[in-house]
Amino acid sequence: MKLQNDLILRAARGESTERAPVWVMRQAGRVLAEYRATRAQAGSFKNLLMNPELAAAVTIQPVDIFGVDAAILFSDILVIPEAMGLPYRMDEGKGPSFDQTITSARVVDQLSTDNVLENLRYVFDAIDHIKRDLSDRVPLIGFAGAPWTIFCYMVEGRGSKTFSLSRAMLSKDPELAHRLLSRITEATIVYLKEQINHGCNMVQLFDSWAGILNKDTYEQFALPYIQKICDAITEVPVTVFAKGAFFSLEAMGKLNCRTIGIDWHTSPGFARQAIGESKTLQGNLDPAVLYGSESFIIQQTERMLDAFGGRQYIANLGHGVYPDIDPGKLKLFIQTVQAYQYKPS
Amino acid sequence: MKLQNDLILRAARGESTERAPVWVMRQAGRVLAEYRATRAQAGSFKNLLMNPELAAAVTIQPVDIFGVDAAILFSDILVIPEAMGLPYRMDEGKGPSFDQTITSARVVDQLSTDNVLENLRYVFDAIDHIKRDLSDRVPLIGFAGAPWTIFCYMVEGRGSKTFSLSRAMLSKDPELAHRLLSRITEATIVYLKEQINHGCNMVQLFDSWAGILNKDTYEQFALPYIQKICDAITEVPVTVFAKGAFFSLEAMGKLNCRTIGIDWHTSPGFARQAIGESKTLQGNLDPAVLYGSESFIIQQTERMLDAFGGRQYIANLGHGVYPDIDPGKLKLFIQTVQAYQYKPS
Repeated sequence: MKLQNDLILRAARGESTERAPVWVMRQAGRVLAEYRATRAQAGSFKNLLMNPELAAAVTIQPVDIFGVDAAILFSDILVIPEAMGLPYRMDEGKGPSFDQTITSARVVDQLSTDNVLENLRYVFDAIDHIKRDLSDRVPLIGFAGAPWTIFCYMVEGRGSKTFSLSRAMLSKDPELAHRLLSRITEATIVYLKEQINHGCNMVQLFDSWAGILNKDTYEQFALPYIQKICDAITEVPVTVFAKGAFFSLEAMGKLNCRTIGIDWHTSPGFARQAIGESKTLQGNLDPAVLYGSESFIIQQTERMLDAFGGRQYIANLGHGVYPDIDPGKLKLFIQTVQAYQYKPS
Repeated sequence: MKLQNDLILRAARGESTERAPVWVMRQAGRVLAEYRATRAQAGSFKNLLMNPELAAAVTIQPVDIFGVDAAILFSDILVIPEAMGLPYRMDEGKGPSFDQTITSARVVDQLSTDNVLENLRYVFDAIDHIKRDLSDRVPLIGFAGAPWTIFCYMVEGRGSKTFSLSRAMLSKDPELAHRLLSRITEATIVYLKEQINHGCNMVQLFDSWAGILNKDTYEQFALPYIQKICDAITEVPVTVFAKGAFFSLEAMGKLNCRTIGIDWHTSPGFARQAIGESKTLQGNLDPAVLYGSESFIIQQTERMLDAFGGRQYIANLGHGVYPDIDPGKLKLFIQTVQAYQYKPS
């Protein structure tokens, strides 16, 4: 089937596009009343993501409502540790938590990557539903957490201000850290390949906790595993979004991926200079701009589009949209991108 | 009185020193059993900082125990909003919180900077105690929060993952934001000048939440107020530590301060290049290195000292020491710095 709108794939491949494609991190989420209604119907966040029909519905809502140029699978990065044998809970207002965490080599060796596909059947079923209901209107983005971020959750058991347990392991027992990171990487490759088998048109790695490391530790414990995944995924374009990793953008420019996501702390010029010319950039409006007036949103969005320069570019926020943003303001952002004319280069 | 050890002042002024001076952020804190005992005696964190005798005792503990080259006043950045009329609570294990927050111009106008000195008498009494008991062995560092960070607490009421209320105000009502930032700045200048009157030999501004902004917003809402404070404090050297503000290091190089603190995400080379040659740099060992073995700590500390290059430099961690670090490991860090010989340049 031919996609009716393949702008984002063409931009990711570095082809020229008549305008910038746009989607929004967390577009399938609490910002939408329609999402909140579907979630209420499911009863809980985990019920929602494990129900292929409802997960498909919330994936498609922002395509219908906002007219974004891509859908992104509604799921959670923590399904991977769970599929490896470390179940997590998602408590309302408290974020995710694991009862068991990784404290020793023994616990790492108990993890299994054998049943990842079987355990994540509900994700692939959701993708099947989405692909059917999306009818090739726009591409579907699959995703996974980057190994370092998954590692943090598995070692810490929850979010943290300092992630000092995870970082302590890098100092105390780097060998154990590498062993766990390798296992996560294996599982992630299998998982992403199956997402692609079921029809995901591109995939994104989210390294949410990149920014708690520095250049040395990021390039020792995080980037080599991202590289392995990028090397393994040859079927579709890969995007890497490492939040806070300004210190490693140059190294990321050498990854075997097509697109680098840029957070809102990093200016387009800084990113382009560090990464070089070979990648498509994605981002990076400060999500807090959407609290402003309509004229402020239009002005800041056009300023961002000017700064990224209109080629090899996918518009997005620099992080997930905040749940209390007026959806009308988010739509204004999307429409501003879609109305913006590239100047002939 | 002449200081017996003025290394840090000479380094801050850009004079050459026989070795790098060293102190540690949060050196007066939970990492020390002696601190925990004094805090238990005080009954609570706020009792401790409001008791001049006990606050003096914990300020001096790390000088006695670790042999650091400077003491830093034991206090809290949130005494400033409290002195302006917005009291805060410090709940065990939960961090600080404000019952009332800044939601409108009316609340900003109710704040008062008239009684800051009177309300903070206990801080100046503590400084008097410290100066007496320290007997000029090492310099005493005073400090305050930078206006943007204080603003965040006053608007948010507590720490936050996204600080979206604070950032929303910048988008929604920049004028109100500037009005509040100006009031905080006024109070901070009066406060720091009185710390200096009582004998602080240098002062540091902590901009703990710098990293949630970007170059545009930091240079619009944060840096101009830091600049005002730096311009006003002419009596002693000023250090500015803006955690996460890699994007504005170049602009910080133009501040009227002597020293720029560098967090552990920013490499010494990146910082020196952005800031230029005119400032002393302070930092920046990854605090998580202190979870490692002794040989790892020595190796990483010497690597840091090599990278900073041995002039215009004050050694420190790149953030506060974590409370669960073995104090013996912290002492090893300090001794490694003090034993390191500068190569003749």
